[in-house]
Amino acid sequence: MQGTPTKMPGKVFLIGAGSGDPDLLTLKALRLIQSADVVVHDRLVSPEIMALVPAATRRISVGKTAGFHSVPQDQINALLVELAQADLTVARLKGGDPLIFGRGSEEAEELAAAGVAYAYVPGITAAQGAAASTGVPLTHRGLATGVRYVTGHRAADEALELDWESLADPDTTLVVYMGAANMAEIAARLIAHGLPIDLPVLAVAHATTPRERRLPSTLARIAADLAAEPMEAPVLFMIGRVAGLYATAALPLPRELKAAHLRVVGHG
Amino acid sequence: MQGTPTKMPGKVFLIGAGSGDPDLLTLKALRLIQSADVVVHDRLVSPEIMALVPAATRRISVGKTAGFHSVPQDQINALLVELAQADLTVARLKGGDPLIFGRGSEEAEELAAAGVAYAYVPGITAAQGAAASTGVPLTHRGLATGVRYVTGHRAADEALELDWESLADPDTTLVVYMGAANMAEIAARLIAHGLPIDLPVLAVAHATTPRERRLPSTLARIAADLAAEPMEAPVLFMIGRVAGLYATAALPLPRELKAAHLRVVGHG
Repeated sequence: MQGTPTKMPGKVFLIGAGSGDPDLLTLKALRLIQSADVVVHDRLVSPEIMALVPAATRRISVGKTAGFHSVPQDQINALLVELAQADLTVARLKGGDPLIFGRGSEEAEELAAAGVAYAYVPGITAAQGAAASTGVPLTHRGLATGVRYVTGHRAADEALELDWESLADPDTTLVVYMGAANMAEIAARLIAHGLPIDLPVLAVAHATTPRERRLPSTLARIAADLAAEPMEAPVLFMIGRVAGLYATAALPLPRELKAAHLRVVGHG
Repeated sequence: MQGTPTKMPGKVFLIGAGSGDPDLLTLKALRLIQSADVVVHDRLVSPEIMALVPAATRRISVGKTAGFHSVPQDQINALLVELAQADLTVARLKGGDPLIFGRGSEEAEELAAAGVAYAYVPGITAAQGAAASTGVPLTHRGLATGVRYVTGHRAADEALELDWESLADPDTTLVVYMGAANMAEIAARLIAHGLPIDLPVLAVAHATTPRERRLPSTLARIAADLAAEPMEAPVLFMIGRVAGLYATAALPLPRELKAAHLRVVGHG
């Protein structure tokens, strides 16, 4: 070892916080969260995960919630550049995976343009969390040969621009992120393009957390069922034959598992 | 606490080992691997990850490699049931995510039928590992509104049963798992169904490990490029406009990052 220790130049890690359960963070994500100089986080990151950030670490909420961005994307980009140029190591923490509906690569473009070093850390996306928690697989022999993720969110007054013909594929599990507001239209269009009215749908909110909720339904009924039993956004919709396995293979809710575990531990 | 400690009944955890880098294991996966009585693993699980299994833990390789299953699925199912019924905690370790092309839910069906308790632990699937490592996002504003995973593998003498019309969607990133053997047909069919001949393709093998290799190409050239520079299976193909970002936003290979890190640490 030669020379004197020098401050490392700033760097931004665009990190997926996963589906909500802190136990589903990657080892790399946890280490970076705990060693960063500053954590810049969306509001979608669960409180259980934010509790792992050391108390002394500076936190900046950029308050992104489904359908509402309290800090515009260009200001987030400018903030990340500014922090890195002050030689700070920045953990930019996003719900799910930064490269699946996370806009991680948009932030990276701005960092690259400003000459700031960056790297990505993948995370368990909501579809994977919902699948593992509920017991509904994303692919399954004889039921689904593949899986597809789309967003059901749209900007105000704009039409949902989705290729319905392509989406209405009965052999593919369709996972719709952020689709609660537009599920009536999405379901109607999928039916109009040939998917069966009784195709199973499972709506899941806050998967893998103590607040997880589930609503099993069908394409024809999902919008009405959701109106009768509103779920807190963001809601994920698993659409396809695999969702029919929920009737026979549903796993307990996370809070039920925890309660059962406490009973075993407490009363031997 | 009352009563005497009793042996817990057996249980099987169907665990995703992620894309190869042990740093991308989830906290839950690592803890279960290190506390299980026995680890039943596929050959696709990287040697770096298997090195985290305690030396004293029993390991059973069921030797699944792409296109070749050395232990038939029904024998794997029977083995898992037998181990759990002997009151063992079983870590069933699979490459990627157990519910994305992992057949985790098929094993779960057999466990449920035998009355054996099970749970899933999701993992970083190969597409996410390849995206984070190479810098090519799976979705990106203006380039891809969604992402889709299919397998390009087929049983001997069977046709590739894919809905080409649906797959040829220029607004969706198409990720083909295990497609090396059939990439000439896949590319030709996608072109025949309307995708442009110069649509970018990035082939990636062993993403997130020191053995990672990449081959940037186009739909028209990928089969020939792959024939000229064969890659070790399994190969993942990222097909779509996002793959064009590789030309400007490619990140260093994992082994280059490690070498650079060693230089910094070694010479201050």
